Amino acid sequence: MSEAAKTYEGWYAYHDFRKIDWNKWKSLNPSERQQMIKELLETIREFSTVEDDRQGSFGQYAILGHKADLLFIHLRPTMDELNEVKLQFDKTGFADVTSTPYSYISVVELSSYTIPPDVDPLSDPAFRERLQPILPKTQYVCFYPMNKRRLGDDNWYMLSSEERRRMMRSHGLIGRSYAGKVRQIITGSVGFDDWEWGVSLFSDDPLNFKKLVYEMRFDEVSARFGEFGPFYVGCRLTDEGLSDLLSKNIKG
Amino acid sequence: MSEAAKTYEGWYAYHDFRKIDWNKWKSLNPSERQQMIKELLETIREFSTVEDDRQGSFGQYAILGHKADLLFIHLRPTMDELNEVKLQFDKTGFADVTSTPYSYISVVELSSYTIPPDVDPLSDPAFRERLQPILPKTQYVCFYPMNKRRLGDDNWYMLSSEERRRMMRSHGLIGRSYAGKVRQIITGSVGFDDWEWGVSLFSDDPLNFKKLVYEMRFDEVSARFGEFGPFYVGCRLTDEGLSDLLSKNIKG
Amino acid sequence: MSEAAKTYEGWYAYHDFRKIDWNKWKSLNPSERQQMIKELLETIREFSTVEDDRQGSFGQYAILGHKADLLFIHLRPTMDELNEVKLQFDKTGFADVTSTPYSYISVVELSSYTIPPDVDPLSDPAFRERLQPILPKTQYVCFYPMNKRRLGDDNWYMLSSEERRRMMRSHGLIGRSYAGKVRQIITGSVGFDDWEWGVSLFSDDPLNFKKLVYEMRFDEVSARFGEFGPFYVGCRLTDEGLSDLLSKNIKG
Amino acid sequence: MSEAAKTYEGWYAYHDFRKIDWNKWKSLNPSERQQMIKELLETIREFSTVEDDRQGSFGQYAILGHKADLLFIHLRPTMDELNEVKLQFDKTGFADVTSTPYSYISVVELSSYTIPPDVDPLSDPAFRERLQPILPKTQYVCFYPMNKRRLGDDNWYMLSSEERRRMMRSHGLIGRSYAGKVRQIITGSVGFDDWEWGVSLFSDDPLNFKKLVYEMRFDEVSARFGEFGPFYVGCRLTDEGLSDLLSKNIKG
Amino acid sequence: MSEAAKTYEGWYAYHDFRKIDWNKWKSLNPSERQQMIKELLETIREFSTVEDDRQGSFGQYAILGHKADLLFIHLRPTMDELNEVKLQFDKTGFADVTSTPYSYISVVELSSYTIPPDVDPLSDPAFRERLQPILPKTQYVCFYPMNKRRLGDDNWYMLSSEERRRMMRSHGLIGRSYAGKVRQIITGSVGFDDWEWGVSLFSDDPLNFKKLVYEMRFDEVSARFGEFGPFYVGCRLTDEGLSDLLSKNIKG
Repeated sequence: MSEAAKTYEGWYAYHDFRKIDWNKWKSLNPSERQQMIKELLETIREFSTVEDDRQGSFGQYAILGHKADLLFIHLRPTMDELNEVKLQFDKTGFADVTSTPYSYISVVELSSYTIPPDVDPLSDPAFRERLQPILPKTQYVCFYPMNKRRLGDDNWYMLSSEERRRMMRSHGLIGRSYAGKVRQIITGSVGFDDWEWGVSLFSDDPLNFKKLVYEMRFDEVSARFGEFGPFYVGCRLTDEGLSDLLSKNIKG
Repeated sequence: MSEAAKTYEGWYAYHDFRKIDWNKWKSLNPSERQQMIKELLETIREFSTVEDDRQGSFGQYAILGHKADLLFIHLRPTMDELNEVKLQFDKTGFADVTSTPYSYISVVELSSYTIPPDVDPLSDPAFRERLQPILPKTQYVCFYPMNKRRLGDDNWYMLSSEERRRMMRSHGLIGRSYAGKVRQIITGSVGFDDWEWGVSLFSDDPLNFKKLVYEMRFDEVSARFGEFGPFYVGCRLTDEGLSDLLSKNIKG
Repeated sequence: MSEAAKTYEGWYAYHDFRKIDWNKWKSLNPSERQQMIKELLETIREFSTVEDDRQGSFGQYAILGHKADLLFIHLRPTMDELNEVKLQFDKTGFADVTSTPYSYISVVELSSYTIPPDVDPLSDPAFRERLQPILPKTQYVCFYPMNKRRLGDDNWYMLSSEERRRMMRSHGLIGRSYAGKVRQIITGSVGFDDWEWGVSLFSDDPLNFKKLVYEMRFDEVSARFGEFGPFYVGCRLTDEGLSDLLSKNIKG
Repeated sequence: MSEAAKTYEGWYAYHDFRKIDWNKWKSLNPSERQQMIKELLETIREFSTVEDDRQGSFGQYAILGHKADLLFIHLRPTMDELNEVKLQFDKTGFADVTSTPYSYISVVELSSYTIPPDVDPLSDPAFRERLQPILPKTQYVCFYPMNKRRLGDDNWYMLSSEERRRMMRSHGLIGRSYAGKVRQIITGSVGFDDWEWGVSLFSDDPLNFKKLVYEMRFDEVSARFGEFGPFYVGCRLTDEGLSDLLSKNIKG
Repeated sequence: MSEAAKTYEGWYAYHDFRKIDWNKWKSLNPSERQQMIKELLETIREFSTVEDDRQGSFGQYAILGHKADLLFIHLRPTMDELNEVKLQFDKTGFADVTSTPYSYISVVELSSYTIPPDVDPLSDPAFRERLQPILPKTQYVCFYPMNKRRLGDDNWYMLSSEERRRMMRSHGLIGRSYAGKVRQIITGSVGFDDWEWGVSLFSDDPLNFKKLVYEMRFDEVSARFGEFGPFYVGCRLTDEGLSDLLSKNIKG
């Protein structure tokens, strides 16, 4: 039996993708829409207050393409809060004009591969901050889930911990070469959702997402062992931006 | 031909996942909703009474993410009762505001791998209790279906029974190291549903699900032979909790 | 080129799975529902009459889980009759409250693997009966489609006919050891539907389905060469049982 | 680099599968239905006239099972005409009571494997007729799309043209042994649709579809290199048959 | 670690596939339809103006088969503009009678494989034009997404850059042999969408799509390493053609 990698977990994460039923939205009268936007913004401000108390983090994004229109990311200390957040949102009027094509349940994770052996991550404030991160306020976000492959000779979980450590270090070097350009939040979802990890990337230039993920794909960890789910890319929305998205150029 | 593993079966299991159509729910008037909640709670109490007579078990959970909102687990001595339970629920008013994105049909199973050769499980009360288990009243639940892989050199069903036994023992050791933290109920679904087994995990800390499943993934049985379906994680609901989930903060 | 197995074909088979839209059903008034049940039972009795003339067979079942609610199996001498049966059912009022999540088109098949070389199956009444079977009136049914794998070294269709015959014989021995407990009807669907075969199992104890399919999975034919589609399990319905399923505990 | 097979292309093909919304159809009043049938038959007759001028071909079929109810096959000299035909049909009243679960876009194709080296197919009337075929007026039709596999050692496109030619000849021999029983129209869809080829089979006995496809599956080309999509089987409809299908036993 | 290929990126691309709900469209009264067409054409003309300022490109196409009815391709300098274009279209009245079965987010890409080592592509006007292309005004379009395979011995990302360069050159030769017949625009989507690349082909004869893609499939790059998603083929629409598509032969 191969030795399992030690992991450290922080805040739970809920990636909530929504598609807007524009037809339904437009069929409402203007005052109904204004009332719904008001309630939505109030709900969202409430979600955001957790950052002030460092009891979580929240971000909202416009997603490109047909797979979703909006993404709300919630980080919270407990899974129960993620469930409360889901119910709270589902009970808003705005939720009734959306559907939920995708979501992801995970927990912020640091693996021992990336932690120097002489560091006790739980007592190190820098590591704690990485386990309880505030979502970066960059202009763009990218999310995708992934697995480590277990197929024939390419079976990540049958490698020795030395081999895994060596490859993850090389992998980490690529990530570090994008320092200042791309921020990564890795969340673990084994036992919670259909893939093993979620990867959330944050940058002020979306090309960085492409360049980072593409460069990593040539690295043995990804080339031989990476299995990737759907990719989502989006633009961060301020409250005003969200309100505009819903109200600008809507007739009636 | 490889010798088949002997299995012992107990109660049949029905995992009934439901998604709430909140739009429809909110469109009802308050007294209709109250009437439906009342009927739902009565139905659920009826489902629960089987535990008093040790004629089955029942649990209800709020599921995270977009895949489902509620999970009802029924354990019953016969498959006919599972069908009755399905029909009884489908005929409630509340069922009309739900859809059924997933379900799972299986039977509680113990395999001979985990039974000492000198034990006759059917005459041993401890084994009987494991075959007819009361669902643990923990705060969290995790469910996923799985197969043993049959692919090239990684073909579980072509291994000798000695190899399978050895690997399952090592696998069992991981499970036992979580004794007191995670309770597992393994249900077999060969011939009943699309995967070979269902795994239901129960814990008071959802991180234990992640840690147990992740640690097992490095074990040869999972690393080489495990194929995993969708994962669901949820929080146990009391009757009051279910009622609150449906009525709190609903306007009108 | 490997020599193809000789097959003998009998009656055509139509497995018609239906899901009930309970919401729609309950929205009808009681007399409409009674009228629809009456028409449904008349249609079903008409379907059943083919058994009296040995011009086919018919069975109806309640399916467990979310994948379907009802299964109607039709065996008929010609494919045209299967199409007529489909249209006849679709034109009933009851069909309007159902959707069709799955179906299967195949033909009862015996392969030469299981026929002694000195037997001419077409002139043997026992073989003819197996090609034109009356659906067993057992309490439970199990259905699943399957393929023989063609993947790397596990390519059924590249084996010599001797190897295939040897393995199918061993496979058949398992089936025969369940004689009196499980009846199998194998239907071929190459050229008709998405998998190569359909397997319909009939028993008075659903555990027999699990035990038979699980034991077979350790047999080389299944272990190396079996690819399995969705599994459905259900309880046989009498006409009264079908009527009860639709009318009992429906309010209004 | 392996030398590509030379291909010859004829008429473009559009396989248009439709599912009837019987509920909607029945909700129309009889005169509306009659009007729609009338318009449908006129449209279909128009589609058929291309055969008179040898400017294409047209056929209509009742499809078995839940995947579709009707199949319309159009052969036309240009892709633009296929698009016009789609729009023309979508604008009929009858189209409004149908959905389009599947379709296939391809072009009639002959590959050089089957053409003697000393024949110039474009100047040979027999070959031209095979490139611009009239759909056989047989009672039954079978359609499925397929790929040639590119997987590990079973990579069709890495074989030498000699190997491919040898295997395709052997494959063709099976087809020829069904001369008079099954007519095949092979259409290429590389660059047009999700699979590489469509196969349309025509016979007066549907068992021939099963026997031909099954026998071919043991041939190396199919056994090692064939990947098959969904299979559809149906009965040819005369205009009267189509009208009956829609009007017989419809109440009201 | 294999050296990653250097890539150059130009305009962002949004392939927006739409399916028309003809039933809904026909249910509108003629003046509503005319109003919607008017608004649609105005929106589309606005989309097209970017070409005048070389601030992007725009094309509209009728897609064959059931997968979509219309395709709008937008090329723009920034991802934000793609999101604005999506919202602008979703807010038109016409968008309400469409659904979005598919879309693709990518960015025009040139890889260093195809660039002579002594050329600085960013200062070369010809390369810049290829990174900021005007969509060819050909009669037909073909779109498909693709991956480079990472499977066992066929792992593109584990090859040396020399091997990749050699194969891509040979691949490019095929493309070049279609010069004047097919124009290709390659867009990269790593980090943006579910496949690694999108391929958009433009030609005045759709057979060229088939011939080019088929010939390439025998080339080692495609034969061993190409994994292909869905294929879409369509006919370019002028504004008049789009208007006709929506209004011709619509009754009422």
